[in-house]
Amino acid sequence: MDKTRKNERALEHEAAVAEADDTATGIDEPAAPAAGTLNAALLNPKADIAVLDALENELFALGYTLGEIISFADVIDPDGATEDRGEALAYLVQKRQEALCAPEIGAVLDRLEANPAILNEKQAAEVKILKRDRAQLVDVPVEEQAALSRLQNESSAVWHKAKLADDWASFEPYLDQIVEAQIRIAGYKNAGKDPYDVWLDEYEHGTDRTFYDEFFTELKDTVVPLLADVVAADQPTEAVEGTFGEGRQWALARELVKLEGLDMDRLWLGATEHPFTGGPGRNFVIVTGHAHEDDVLSNVYSILHEGGHALYEQNVDEKLNRTCLCSGTSCGMHEAQSRFFENYIGRSKAFARPLLEIMKRHFPGPLGRLTPNQLYIAANRAEPSLIRTEADELTYPLHIIVRYEIEQLLFSGEAKAADVPRLWKERYKSYLGVDVPDYQRGPLQDVHWSQGSFGYFPTYALGSAYGAQLKYKMVEDGVDFDGACGSGDLAPIRAWLGHAIWRHGRSKDSAELIQGACGEPFSAHYFCDYLREKFSSLYRLKA
Amino acid sequence: MDKTRKNERALEHEAAVAEADDTATGIDEPAAPAAGTLNAALLNPKADIAVLDALENELFALGYTLGEIISFADVIDPDGATEDRGEALAYLVQKRQEALCAPEIGAVLDRLEANPAILNEKQAAEVKILKRDRAQLVDVPVEEQAALSRLQNESSAVWHKAKLADDWASFEPYLDQIVEAQIRIAGYKNAGKDPYDVWLDEYEHGTDRTFYDEFFTELKDTVVPLLADVVAADQPTEAVEGTFGEGRQWALARELVKLEGLDMDRLWLGATEHPFTGGPGRNFVIVTGHAHEDDVLSNVYSILHEGGHALYEQNVDEKLNRTCLCSGTSCGMHEAQSRFFENYIGRSKAFARPLLEIMKRHFPGPLGRLTPNQLYIAANRAEPSLIRTEADELTYPLHIIVRYEIEQLLFSGEAKAADVPRLWKERYKSYLGVDVPDYQRGPLQDVHWSQGSFGYFPTYALGSAYGAQLKYKMVEDGVDFDGACGSGDLAPIRAWLGHAIWRHGRSKDSAELIQGACGEPFSAHYFCDYLREKFSSLYRLKA
Repeated sequence: MDKTRKNERALEHEAAVAEADDTATGIDEPAAPAAGTLNAALLNPKADIAVLDALENELFALGYTLGEIISFADVIDPDGATEDRGEALAYLVQKRQEALCAPEIGAVLDRLEANPAILNEKQAAEVKILKRDRAQLVDVPVEEQAALSRLQNESSAVWHKAKLADDWASFEPYLDQIVEAQIRIAGYKNAGKDPYDVWLDEYEHGTDRTFYDEFFTELKDTVVPLLADVVAADQPTEAVEGTFGEGRQWALARELVKLEGLDMDRLWLGATEHPFTGGPGRNFVIVTGHAHEDDVLSNVYSILHEGGHALYEQNVDEKLNRTCLCSGTSCGMHEAQSRFFENYIGRSKAFARPLLEIMKRHFPGPLGRLTPNQLYIAANRAEPSLIRTEADELTYPLHIIVRYEIEQLLFSGEAKAADVPRLWKERYKSYLGVDVPDYQRGPLQDVHWSQGSFGYFPTYALGSAYGAQLKYKMVEDGVDFDGACGSGDLAPIRAWLGHAIWRHGRSKDSAELIQGACGEPFSAHYFCDYLREKFSSLYRLKA
Repeated sequence: MDKTRKNERALEHEAAVAEADDTATGIDEPAAPAAGTLNAALLNPKADIAVLDALENELFALGYTLGEIISFADVIDPDGATEDRGEALAYLVQKRQEALCAPEIGAVLDRLEANPAILNEKQAAEVKILKRDRAQLVDVPVEEQAALSRLQNESSAVWHKAKLADDWASFEPYLDQIVEAQIRIAGYKNAGKDPYDVWLDEYEHGTDRTFYDEFFTELKDTVVPLLADVVAADQPTEAVEGTFGEGRQWALARELVKLEGLDMDRLWLGATEHPFTGGPGRNFVIVTGHAHEDDVLSNVYSILHEGGHALYEQNVDEKLNRTCLCSGTSCGMHEAQSRFFENYIGRSKAFARPLLEIMKRHFPGPLGRLTPNQLYIAANRAEPSLIRTEADELTYPLHIIVRYEIEQLLFSGEAKAADVPRLWKERYKSYLGVDVPDYQRGPLQDVHWSQGSFGYFPTYALGSAYGAQLKYKMVEDGVDFDGACGSGDLAPIRAWLGHAIWRHGRSKDSAELIQGACGEPFSAHYFCDYLREKFSSLYRLKA
C-alpha cells in the first residue's frame, strides 16, 4: 500500500533534475547582457545556437544516464553496489552542474534571450527553461551542495531505521539540521524571498504560501464538514476479498497499462517493493507496482496511477525529445495526470464495468459474483485514517494540510523537530478525528523530510485539484467522459489531455497550461464540487 | 543453447572498454618526455598523482555507467529506447576518449612513468595500463571511429536479418567493408604491424599469429585423431530427459551460483534470451541465463560458465576498485575462469555427485533415478556438430580453428567475403567431418564478424588451454581438486585461483599470471593431455 511513496521519490528526483524555478533570475546574474556580448550574438547567432544544441545534447545524455541508474537503483542493484553507484552518480551530477553553470553558457543564454528574433518557438522555450534551471544551481556553493548531499544520505538512512524502531529521538536532530540546511540553500537560490516560498516554487513554479493558503482554506472548508457527514452516514461498505495470484495480477496489470493507452514499445513494467514511475526519458519509461496476494485493488489502482504519470512522459511532443523541455512540467501537473487515471477515471462509476470485466478474466473465481456497483463502492470507501498513502480521495487532502502547516512552522522557526510529534497529534485529531498511537504511523511515516523535501507535499493535493478542473473543462469541450470510461476506450480522454497538457512538456508552466486548456486560471472549486458531489451521492447525504 | 554468444558480446564490450593493447606505444607519442616536462614532475609529483587520481575517478564513473547501460540494454530496455540510448552512449564513449586522450594526460602519464620512484606498485600498474589504453585510442581519427561505429550498427542489423533468412548475399558486402575498416584502424593503432596481429593482441595482450599457429597446430594434432577414435568407438550415450519448470530452474541456478562462491550481495542474476556476464563493476556483476523447459543441463552449465566470469570480476582485489586495473586482464584469461567452472569443475566426474544432489532437490521427479555417472556421461557427449556454441569440449577448438584460418585469409586479402561460404564448407568437412547445409548453420551463425570482432575467437580456445594448465598446477600445489569437486565445497579451488589470478585484475597480463602461477610460460600440452585423458577414458579408447 506504499504505492505513492516511492513514486514520490522518483518524482523528487525528477524535480531535482528539472530544478524548475525561475525565482532567482536576475539576482546574481546580470539582468541584461553587456553591449559587447550583444554584438557578438548579432555577429554570430549560429555559433550561439550551436552552443545551445551542444548543451542540450550533453544534458540529455546525462539526464538519460542519471534517469536509468537512479530509477533502477532500488529495483535491480544489489546492496553491494551502493557505494560505487554513489560515486558514479556524483560524477554525473557534477558534470551536469558544470555543463549548465559554465560562465560562457550564461553569456550565450543571455545573448539568445536578448535576441528573440533568431529563435524559433521551441528554442525560445529552451532558453527560458535552461536559464531557470541554471539560476537554481549557479549560486549554490558546490561544497554546500555536497554537504547537503551527505546529510541527506545519512538522514535518510537514520529515518529508515527510526521508522522501523518507532524511534523519533534518533531522527529528531537530523530533521532540525536538514531544515536549517534547506533554509540556507533557499537563501542562495533567492536571498530576497521567504525560504519556504522558495521551496514551494521549486516544486510547483509560481506558487507560494499565499497561493496554497487560499487553496487549502477552501479545501478544508469543504472536506471537514463533508467528512463529518460521511462518518455520520455510516453506510454499509463493500469489500473485494479473495486470494489473487501474483502472476495473474501482473497479466492484469499489463492489460491495464494497455487499456490506459501506454506504448508498450517504450515502457518497462516490473515489480518492486514500492511502486514508482521513472526512467531515462519519453522513449523509455519505467512503471512498477507491487502485487499483494490478499488485495487485488491495491495494484490495480497503483498501476492506473503510475500509468497516468507514464502517459504524460511518453506523450510529450516527440520534437521536444533530447531537450530540457522533454518531461512533465511540474510535480503538481504530473500528479494531476496520475490521479486523473487512478481516480477520475479509475474510481468512476462508469469505469467500474470495463475494469471489472478485465479483472474477472484474470480472477473469475473470487470476483465471479462481484457487480460493477459493488466494485465502485469498495474502491471509494472514505474514512479517516492514519497513513497518507492509504487515504481515500476525500480524506487525502487533510493529510497534506497537516504536513503543509507543520513545514511552515519549522521554516519560520516557530517549531523545532522536538515539537513535531505534538503538532502532528493535535492536527490529526482536529482535522481527521483520529488518535495517533505511535511515531511510525505519525511523523515518521513519510520519507520526504529525511531527504530534505519540504514544500513537496502540497503538490499532491494541488494535482488532484488540477485534475478536477481539467475533467470539468474536457466535458464542457464535448468529450463524452462517462461514455469513454464506460466503454473502456479512453482515446477521447487521451486526445484531450495530450493536446492540452502532455505534448507541451516543460515549454509551458502549469498556470499557462490550465489557462490555455480551461480559458481561466486555476480554481479549487472544481475539486471541492467534485468531492461534494461524489461523496454525497456515494453516502446518500442530503444536499 | 546460444549461451556463449551473448557472453561473448558482453566481453567484446569489456574488451572494447579495456582496450588492452600496448603495441602502439611510442609510435606517434614521444617515447620519452621532454626535459622541461620531467623537471615539472620532479618539482610537483603530487600534482601529477592528483591528475592520475582524477582521471581514474572519471574513467571509473564513465565505465560504471557504460557498464550498466550496455549490459542491461538487451535485458531490460524497450525497443523504443534504442535510438536515445545510442545518443547517450555516444556521449559517454566520447567523454571517455576525451578524458584519456587529452594531451595533458599524455604528458602526466609520461612524467609519472619516467619517475617510478614516486609511484607505489598499484600506481605504477595504473600508469602502465592507462598508457596502453590511451595508445589504443589516441591515433584513431575520431571521424574514422564514428564511421566504424555506424558501420557496425548497420552491419549487425543486416546480419540479424540475414541469419534468419539464411541469406549470405545481403551480408557479404558488409563483411568486406568491415574487414577493410578494421585493417585501416589497425594501421592507425600500429602502422608497423600486421593488422591481424594488431587485433589478436587487442583481445589477448602479447599474442600474434606465430603464437596461435603453434598453439592451434598442437591442438589440431591432438584433437583430430582423438575425435576420429571417439566417433569410431560408438559408445552408448546417456541423456537427461524430462520437463523442467522455469521457476525451479531458477531456484536451482541460484543455488549453483552460491555453490560457486559468488557474493550474492554484489550479483544480479536474471533471465535473458542470450546468457551473458557483465555489469558496472566488481561490486555489481550481472549474470544471466536462459531456462529451457525441455533441457535442464543447458542452463546449469550456462550458469556455471557465467558464474566463473563473475567470480573473476567480483574477486579482483578491493584495493583496485575504481581504477583501470579493476577487471579481468584479458578475454582469454576471462574465458579460462568461465570454462574452469563450466568444464574442469562442472563436467568433472567428481562434481557430478554434488551437482546431481542439488538438481534432484529441485527436480526429484524426472531426475529421481539418474546416477552421478549417467549425468557425467550425458554432460560429456562428444560429437562433431555444426554450431560452435553447442559444441563439446573436444570438438570446440576445431570450430575456432576454422574461424581463425578464415580470418587470416580475409585480413591478408587472399580471400574476400564471397569466398567465405566455400572455405567454411571445406574446413568443416575436413576438420569435423560434417556437411554444412546452409548459411545459418555456417558462416552466419556468429555475431562477431558483423560487429567487426576479428581475432577474438582464438581467445576462447586459449582460455580453455589456460584453464588446463592452471588446474594442473593447482593440483601440483596440493589442492585436493577432486576432493573439492566431490564435496561441493569449492573454497580451496577459489582460494588458489583468487590468489594466482583474480586478485591481480589488469595489473598483470595473462603471460605474467601464468608464469607467476605455474613457474613456466603457457604451454598447450596441458590442455591436449587433459582432452586425451578425459575422452580416452570416457570412450574407453585404447591408449
